[in-house]
Amino acid sequence: MISRFKRLLIGRPMKSAELEGEKLSKLKALAVLSSDALSSVAYGTEQILLVLMAAGFAAVWYSIPISIAVLGLLLILIISYRQTIFAYPKGGGAYVVAKDNLGVSTGLLAGGSLLVDYILTVAVSSSAGTDAITSAFPSLHDHRVSIALIMIVFLTVMNLRGIGESASVLAYPVYLFVGAIFVLIIAGVVKVIVGGVHADVPEIGTAVSNISLFMLLKAFSSGCSALTGVEAVSNAIPNFKKPAERNAATTLIMMGSILGAMFIGISLLAYWYGIVPSATETVVSQIANATFGRGVLYYAIQGITALILFLAANTAYSAFPLLAFMLAKDKYMPHAFMVRGDRLGFSNGIIFLGVFSALLVVLFHGDTENLIPLYAVGVFIPFTLSQLGMMVRWIKLKPANWGVGLTVNTIGMLTTLIITLIFIFTKFSQIWMVFIFLPIVIIGFYKINRHYMNTADELRINIDKEKPAIKGSTIVVPVAGITKVVLQSISYAKSLTDNVVAVYVGFDEEEIERLEKKWEEWNPGVRLIVLRSSYRSIIRPLVRFIETVEWKTQETDHITVLIPQFITKHWWHNILHNQSSLLLRAYLFTQKDVVIATVPYRLHR
Amino acid sequence: MISRFKRLLIGRPMKSAELEGEKLSKLKALAVLSSDALSSVAYGTEQILLVLMAAGFAAVWYSIPISIAVLGLLLILIISYRQTIFAYPKGGGAYVVAKDNLGVSTGLLAGGSLLVDYILTVAVSSSAGTDAITSAFPSLHDHRVSIALIMIVFLTVMNLRGIGESASVLAYPVYLFVGAIFVLIIAGVVKVIVGGVHADVPEIGTAVSNISLFMLLKAFSSGCSALTGVEAVSNAIPNFKKPAERNAATTLIMMGSILGAMFIGISLLAYWYGIVPSATETVVSQIANATFGRGVLYYAIQGITALILFLAANTAYSAFPLLAFMLAKDKYMPHAFMVRGDRLGFSNGIIFLGVFSALLVVLFHGDTENLIPLYAVGVFIPFTLSQLGMMVRWIKLKPANWGVGLTVNTIGMLTTLIITLIFIFTKFSQIWMVFIFLPIVIIGFYKINRHYMNTADELRINIDKEKPAIKGSTIVVPVAGITKVVLQSISYAKSLTDNVVAVYVGFDEEEIERLEKKWEEWNPGVRLIVLRSSYRSIIRPLVRFIETVEWKTQETDHITVLIPQFITKHWWHNILHNQSSLLLRAYLFTQKDVVIATVPYRLHR
Repeated sequence: MISRFKRLLIGRPMKSAELEGEKLSKLKALAVLSSDALSSVAYGTEQILLVLMAAGFAAVWYSIPISIAVLGLLLILIISYRQTIFAYPKGGGAYVVAKDNLGVSTGLLAGGSLLVDYILTVAVSSSAGTDAITSAFPSLHDHRVSIALIMIVFLTVMNLRGIGESASVLAYPVYLFVGAIFVLIIAGVVKVIVGGVHADVPEIGTAVSNISLFMLLKAFSSGCSALTGVEAVSNAIPNFKKPAERNAATTLIMMGSILGAMFIGISLLAYWYGIVPSATETVVSQIANATFGRGVLYYAIQGITALILFLAANTAYSAFPLLAFMLAKDKYMPHAFMVRGDRLGFSNGIIFLGVFSALLVVLFHGDTENLIPLYAVGVFIPFTLSQLGMMVRWIKLKPANWGVGLTVNTIGMLTTLIITLIFIFTKFSQIWMVFIFLPIVIIGFYKINRHYMNTADELRINIDKEKPAIKGSTIVVPVAGITKVVLQSISYAKSLTDNVVAVYVGFDEEEIERLEKKWEEWNPGVRLIVLRSSYRSIIRPLVRFIETVEWKTQETDHITVLIPQFITKHWWHNILHNQSSLLLRAYLFTQKDVVIATVPYRLHR
Repeated sequence: MISRFKRLLIGRPMKSAELEGEKLSKLKALAVLSSDALSSVAYGTEQILLVLMAAGFAAVWYSIPISIAVLGLLLILIISYRQTIFAYPKGGGAYVVAKDNLGVSTGLLAGGSLLVDYILTVAVSSSAGTDAITSAFPSLHDHRVSIALIMIVFLTVMNLRGIGESASVLAYPVYLFVGAIFVLIIAGVVKVIVGGVHADVPEIGTAVSNISLFMLLKAFSSGCSALTGVEAVSNAIPNFKKPAERNAATTLIMMGSILGAMFIGISLLAYWYGIVPSATETVVSQIANATFGRGVLYYAIQGITALILFLAANTAYSAFPLLAFMLAKDKYMPHAFMVRGDRLGFSNGIIFLGVFSALLVVLFHGDTENLIPLYAVGVFIPFTLSQLGMMVRWIKLKPANWGVGLTVNTIGMLTTLIITLIFIFTKFSQIWMVFIFLPIVIIGFYKINRHYMNTADELRINIDKEKPAIKGSTIVVPVAGITKVVLQSISYAKSLTDNVVAVYVGFDEEEIERLEKKWEEWNPGVRLIVLRSSYRSIIRPLVRFIETVEWKTQETDHITVLIPQFITKHWWHNILHNQSSLLLRAYLFTQKDVVIATVPYRLHR
């Protein structure tokens, strides 16, 4: 029944060979991997304006040079990650690059922050998308957390069904969003050119008395939160159709160009329209309102924006399981993250991501404000480490034109480092938990690694010397009466060895006598040993008995305990049986060094 | 770790022989078994007045004759249940009496309604107690459900610790409550006698124009909800110290006398003071206020009233597990309800009651109004059936003075039957779910019974003819490489039989070749069979292989699958291992007719 439900939800299992068919074309990859980056257009400009407004309306013109600076950083990141794609064609996320060039610890730091960050991506994006919906329909405000959770469940199920199918479903909204924003920008620019906008905005270069370099840097770093998600492509190269590197590089440049154009377009329109951030209406909403009025086009843009924010979460569903797979392959995360599910996705990673992001949404009541700074720090730490790694690589390998590459990465590294430091100094009260949580994650990685290494050492054998050895065997059959189950268990045990003992744990003298007599009559060729129990437990006397057997056979024999278990015809019949055998199994197995043989008895009625 | 926590919560395990020591003395039994009945004083009079007030203030004098009628019914119930105690010294709840005299179906109807009713007792009492607290401290109103749940958890844990200890803790509040109510009544009566009360109340016998017989009967039946809990003593006879019947009968009479005196006292004071039920203050609170003013004594009475309502829930914790035990002994409920826990209580019944009443509290948001009618119907159905059963018994056995007994039970039966019918006709919209839920419970009883009977038939053997038979044996050892675990498994398997096959499920040709070569080098004396899998599952190929073995051995052999399982040093290491072996176990065991032998491998690091 459960398996049928799973089939309905997830779809039929697929062969390993079908994996190639699940690979992404460039256009599909753009949809799957870039929604996180592109969706940041919805709030990037707003973040800059929010900081600048602290210095008064006269300061808003700074948004233009700052946006251009962010654009410059985007260019640096794109060029740098393009270099990374060709240097690491098997998937060059910050984890791989940092580990390769800066050592394991740094790699784990990058990997750990990215893992945490993907969880935050899902939490932030689904909450922000919910915000967009509830802003349009205030009556849904009380159901914020539920809406975000429904979206997370939906995304989890879609991803369990497989990447290819998710892409088909999710590609259109991304294209729609890009189309809608471009229509908005073009219509807005036309309106400005024909003179339809009459805003009294400060001219570029106007002197502002109370602005400081610190404030400008803070605005710049806030604007940089729009660059989260850029790394997704270089992490996911193995998901691309062949030639994977070339396709990934092209996709990265496509994504960078679209993102840059949309971001600068929105920033320019916001400046020309003289738009000021408001608590009740987003900047994009104000631009759309000013351009089209509150008609069909306005609501379409708002709806599509909400949708793209939900899809941004989907980027993490591609990236998290792959990164977890890589960490698991290097034995820093449980092997379970390496298993591909029926539909070829890394199911455990997908489920883990879904559960933990849902938890974050519930804990933070779907409140994005406190999550976003954590999210940005989580991105810029691996950005910095990745570029530092690339710098080391240029210096070590010295390929042709290495000076240019080194320069690009050095500029990128310094910029991202500064942004990280600005985040830490200006927003420490919101991000301090990163500095508690990250060390825990990294210690966890090391502990897991050590355990796997120790286990491998422990299990290794010398095939020349260590060969199987034959020993004696004693089989213990606990019985509760004389039934078909006991008949079957004893038949099985006697087929394996002559050393079979039946054990009965009795509480009541009368019952003990009755059973002993009946056993004698039956005469199954196996000795019955009766243990008297003054507690109601059958486990304790049995354990003592097994200890006696162990002592008598002086560790020369294998001891096997046969435990019959009913296979019932209907699942609910299980409630009526098997409790004590389950307890006995669990206890004996973990406490004593015995083999537990579970003998099925199929009930037919 | 879990077991240490359990020890701390529940206490050390006790020997079966300590059971006698846990038996109840009369005074302790009064505390444990009568809090449900006695606590109804807190609302009995109020229920009557609420109905009468529909006919105006002039009708309140009817509360006196109605209270006397309720008192009469109480007398009838006490006498009747006293007869039951002596007729059924092993515990004569409605279930036993009805089953014995009216047939199994009627018994199950009585038993089922009582079980449901005990769950309702806990839900209603804990909610009503919470109401009393939150009325005194309105700031706690938002935490109603949490407070009720905390009380349920507390009661569950106390009862898991054992009845005796619960009684010691819980006896004092019951005595305090009885003391407090008697102090209140005596002080009130003195105040009335010395002329300190000046209320203009309608004289007894005043003509009331719009009162009907129906309304009087409705008021009477509402008042009868104060009699819930009277049956507890006769159900719990085996819990009494010897001579159990005599002690139980004495306890029953003590309880009846105290309940009757308190009930009529409160009714009289309410009448003399001219008290009218109010939405914001209970009748008892109004009486206490009028007698003592809002001082220490007033708050003490309110607090003790709240406490006694929580303890009323405790009655169900004694009664429910015993009734479930009786039904389980008759094979109408799962055997699990027959198991005594470490502290000699029927742990499963206690936990079941706690979980389901907590569920009801959550579902009804701790709202008593909709639960109380269900609760009353659930009590009066078994009351009626029990007395009908006693009537049949008198007629069948005809002991000395059987005419008197028959008359008592006939009057009681008719009265409770009429009350049940009045409940059904006047409050159908609130109690209809009983008529859906009860049949489901009773069908469940029958299904469970049939399953146990069928199983017993199926397992019965003819000890003269059916003897253990020795057959061949094949042991299948799934391997993933050549490690100490495989060495151990093969050593074990070869110690039992020569028919051992190692099976490797491979996904990758290179790895398969490498393993085959290494196996040859190792030469453990066991053939390695390689299965190629085009899915990632190792279960499917293995199942097909086992089917081949089954077919080859033509069902003459037992097939055993050896599954190694790591016993890790730290519990969290389990996350790192064992997933696939657990899946394999579960699947093979339920789908194929093979013995699963789980071989422990203890990791030391």
